Amino acid sequence: MKARVTVMLKSGVLDPQGKAIGQALNRLGFSGVADVRQGKIIEIEFAETDQTQARSQLAEMCEKLLANTVIENYAIEIKSS
Amino acid sequence: MKARVTVMLKSGVLDPQGKAIGQALNRLGFSGVADVRQGKIIEIEFAETDQTQARSQLAEMCEKLLANTVIENYAIEIKSS
Repeated sequence: MKARVTVMLKSGVLDPQGKAIGQALNRLGFSGVADVRQGKIIEIEFAETDQTQARSQLAEMCEKLLANTVIENYAIEIKSS
Repeated sequence: MKARVTVMLKSGVLDPQGKAIGQALNRLGFSGVADVRQGKIIEIEFAETDQTQARSQLAEMCEKLLANTVIENYAIEIKSS
Protein backbone atom coordinates (compact mmCIF):
# COMPACT_ATOMS: atom_id res chain seq x y z
CA MET A 1 0.00 0.00 0.00
CA LYS A 2 1.16 3.50 -0.80
CA ALA A 3 0.41 6.48 1.37
CA ARG A 4 1.24 10.14 1.37
CA VAL A 5 1.67 12.08 4.59
CA THR A 6 1.59 15.87 4.45
CA VAL A 7 3.09 17.80 7.33
CA MET A 8 2.49 21.55 7.56
CA LEU A 9 3.18 24.09 10.27
CA LYS A 10 0.01 25.03 12.13
CA SER A 11 -1.45 28.35 11.10
CA GLY A 12 -0.18 30.98 13.49
CA VAL A 13 3.23 29.35 13.80
CA LEU A 14 5.92 31.50 12.22
CA ASP A 15 7.29 29.99 9.01
CA PRO A 16 10.63 31.65 8.19
CA GLN A 17 11.34 29.22 5.35
CA GLY A 18 8.04 30.06 3.67
CA LYS A 19 8.67 33.76 4.21
CA ALA A 20 12.10 33.47 2.58
CA ILE A 21 10.57 31.76 -0.45
CA GLY A 22 7.95 34.50 -0.68
CA GLN A 23 10.60 37.22 -0.60
CA ALA A 24 12.71 35.42 -3.21
CA LEU A 25 9.66 35.16 -5.49
CA ASN A 26 9.01 38.86 -5.06
CA ARG A 27 12.61 39.64 -5.95
CA LEU A 28 12.25 37.49 -9.07
CA GLY A 29 9.37 39.68 -10.17
CA PHE A 30 6.35 37.70 -9.01
CA SER A 31 4.81 40.70 -7.35
CA GLY A 32 1.40 39.18 -6.65
CA VAL A 33 2.67 36.66 -4.12
CA ALA A 34 1.11 37.33 -0.74
CA ASP A 35 1.77 34.43 1.58
CA VAL A 36 3.91 31.31 1.28
CA ARG A 37 4.04 28.36 3.66
CA GLN A 38 6.36 25.42 3.32
CA GLY A 39 5.75 21.88 4.44
CA LYS A 40 6.89 18.32 4.00
CA ILE A 41 5.57 15.39 2.03
CA ILE A 42 6.48 11.87 3.01
CA GLU A 43 5.53 9.06 0.64
CA ILE A 44 5.53 5.68 2.32
CA GLU A 45 5.23 2.28 0.72
CA PHE A 46 4.40 -0.44 3.19
CA ALA A 47 3.20 -3.98 3.56
CA GLU A 48 -0.13 -3.38 5.33
CA THR A 49 -3.07 -4.04 3.00
CA ASP A 50 -6.03 -3.18 5.23
CA GLN A 51 -7.12 0.46 4.87
CA THR A 52 -8.13 1.09 8.48
CA GLN A 53 -5.07 -0.73 9.85
CA ALA A 54 -2.87 1.28 7.52
CA ARG A 55 -4.45 4.55 8.55
CA SER A 56 -3.99 3.89 12.27
CA GLN A 57 -0.40 2.78 11.68
CA LEU A 58 0.31 5.94 9.72
CA ALA A 59 -1.23 8.10 12.43
CA GLU A 60 1.07 6.41 14.94
CA MET A 61 4.08 7.06 12.67
CA CYS A 62 3.13 10.72 12.48
CA GLU A 63 2.68 11.08 16.21
CA LYS A 64 5.94 9.29 17.00
CA LEU A 65 8.28 10.50 14.29
CA LEU A 66 7.02 12.30 11.22
CA ALA A 67 5.38 15.36 12.71
CA ASN A 68 6.01 17.58 15.70
CA THR A 69 2.40 17.82 16.79
CA VAL A 70 3.08 20.81 19.02
CA ILE A 71 3.63 23.04 16.01
CA GLU A 72 2.68 20.90 13.02
CA ASN A 73 -0.49 19.38 11.54
CA TYR A 74 -0.42 16.23 9.49
CA ALA A 75 -2.76 14.81 6.86
CA ILE A 76 -2.82 11.18 5.75
CA GLU A 77 -3.85 10.23 2.24
CA ILE A 78 -3.92 6.59 1.24
CA LYS A 79 -3.35 5.83 -2.41
CA SER A 80 -4.02 2.59 -4.23
CA SER A 81 -2.60 -0.56 -2.69
CA MET B 1 -5.93 32.41 -5.36
CA LYS B 2 -4.37 29.62 -3.40
CA ALA B 3 -2.14 27.00 -4.93
CA ARG B 4 -0.14 24.05 -3.72
CA VAL B 5 3.11 23.05 -5.37
CA THR B 6 4.52 19.60 -4.66
CA VAL B 7 8.19 18.99 -5.34
CA MET B 8 9.51 15.41 -5.25
CA LEU B 9 12.83 13.91 -6.24
CA LYS B 10 12.57 12.10 -9.57
CA SER B 11 12.36 8.34 -9.27
CA GLY B 12 15.82 6.93 -9.62
CA VAL B 13 17.42 9.83 -7.78
CA LEU B 14 18.84 8.72 -4.44
CA ASP B 15 16.85 10.08 -1.50
CA PRO B 16 18.99 9.80 1.67
CA GLN B 17 16.48 11.77 3.75
CA GLY B 18 13.69 9.38 2.82
CA LYS B 19 15.95 6.41 3.50
CA ALA B 20 16.79 7.79 6.95
CA ILE B 21 13.08 8.17 7.74
CA GLY B 22 12.46 4.60 6.60
CA GLN B 23 15.22 3.26 8.82
CA ALA B 24 13.98 5.29 11.78
CA LEU B 25 10.45 3.90 11.27
CA ASN B 26 11.86 0.37 11.16
CA ARG B 27 13.74 0.97 14.41
CA LEU B 28 10.50 2.24 15.99
CA GLY B 29 8.90 -1.11 15.20
CA PHE B 30 7.08 -0.36 11.95
CA SER B 31 8.51 -3.40 10.24
CA GLY B 32 6.32 -3.30 7.14
CA VAL B 33 7.80 -0.08 5.79
CA ALA B 34 9.44 -0.73 2.42
CA ASP B 35 10.24 2.54 0.75
CA VAL B 36 10.07 6.16 1.89
CA ARG B 37 10.57 9.28 -0.23
CA GLN B 38 10.53 12.80 1.09
CA GLY B 39 9.48 15.91 -0.76
CA LYS B 40 8.42 19.49 -0.27
CA ILE B 41 5.08 21.23 -0.31
CA ILE B 42 4.86 24.94 -0.98
CA GLU B 43 1.52 26.64 -0.45
CA ILE B 44 1.29 29.98 -2.22
CA GLU B 45 -1.38 32.61 -1.89
CA PHE B 46 -1.29 35.14 -4.68
CA ALA B 47 -3.21 37.90 -6.37
CA GLU B 48 -3.77 36.30 -9.80
CA THR B 49 -7.39 35.28 -10.28
CA ASP B 50 -7.29 33.69 -13.75
CA GLN B 51 -6.72 29.90 -13.60
CA THR B 52 -4.58 29.56 -16.74
CA GLN B 53 -2.55 32.68 -15.94
CA ALA B 54 -2.01 31.39 -12.42
CA ARG B 55 -0.91 28.00 -13.67
CA SER B 56 1.64 29.42 -16.09
CA GLN B 57 2.94 31.79 -13.42
CA LEU B 58 3.32 28.89 -10.98
CA ALA B 59 5.14 26.81 -13.59
CA GLU B 60 7.56 29.71 -14.07
CA MET B 61 8.07 29.96 -10.29
CA CYS B 62 8.86 26.24 -10.18
CA GLU B 63 11.32 26.40 -13.07
CA LYS B 64 13.07 29.48 -11.68
CA LEU B 65 13.13 28.86 -7.95
CA LEU B 66 10.98 26.21 -6.32
CA ALA B 67 12.27 23.05 -7.97
CA ASN B 68 15.59 21.87 -9.27
CA THR B 69 14.27 20.35 -12.47
CA VAL B 70 17.44 18.36 -13.05
CA ILE B 71 16.60 16.04 -10.17
CA GLU B 72 13.09 17.05 -9.08
CA ASN B 73 9.56 16.85 -10.47
CA TYR B 74 6.90 19.33 -9.54
CA ALA B 75 3.13 19.21 -9.53
CA ILE B 76 0.85 22.23 -9.41
CA GLU B 77 -2.56 22.06 -7.81
CA ILE B 78 -4.77 25.11 -7.77
CA LYS B 79 -7.24 25.40 -4.93
CA SER B 80 -10.22 27.71 -4.66
CA SER B 81 -9.62 31.39 -5.30
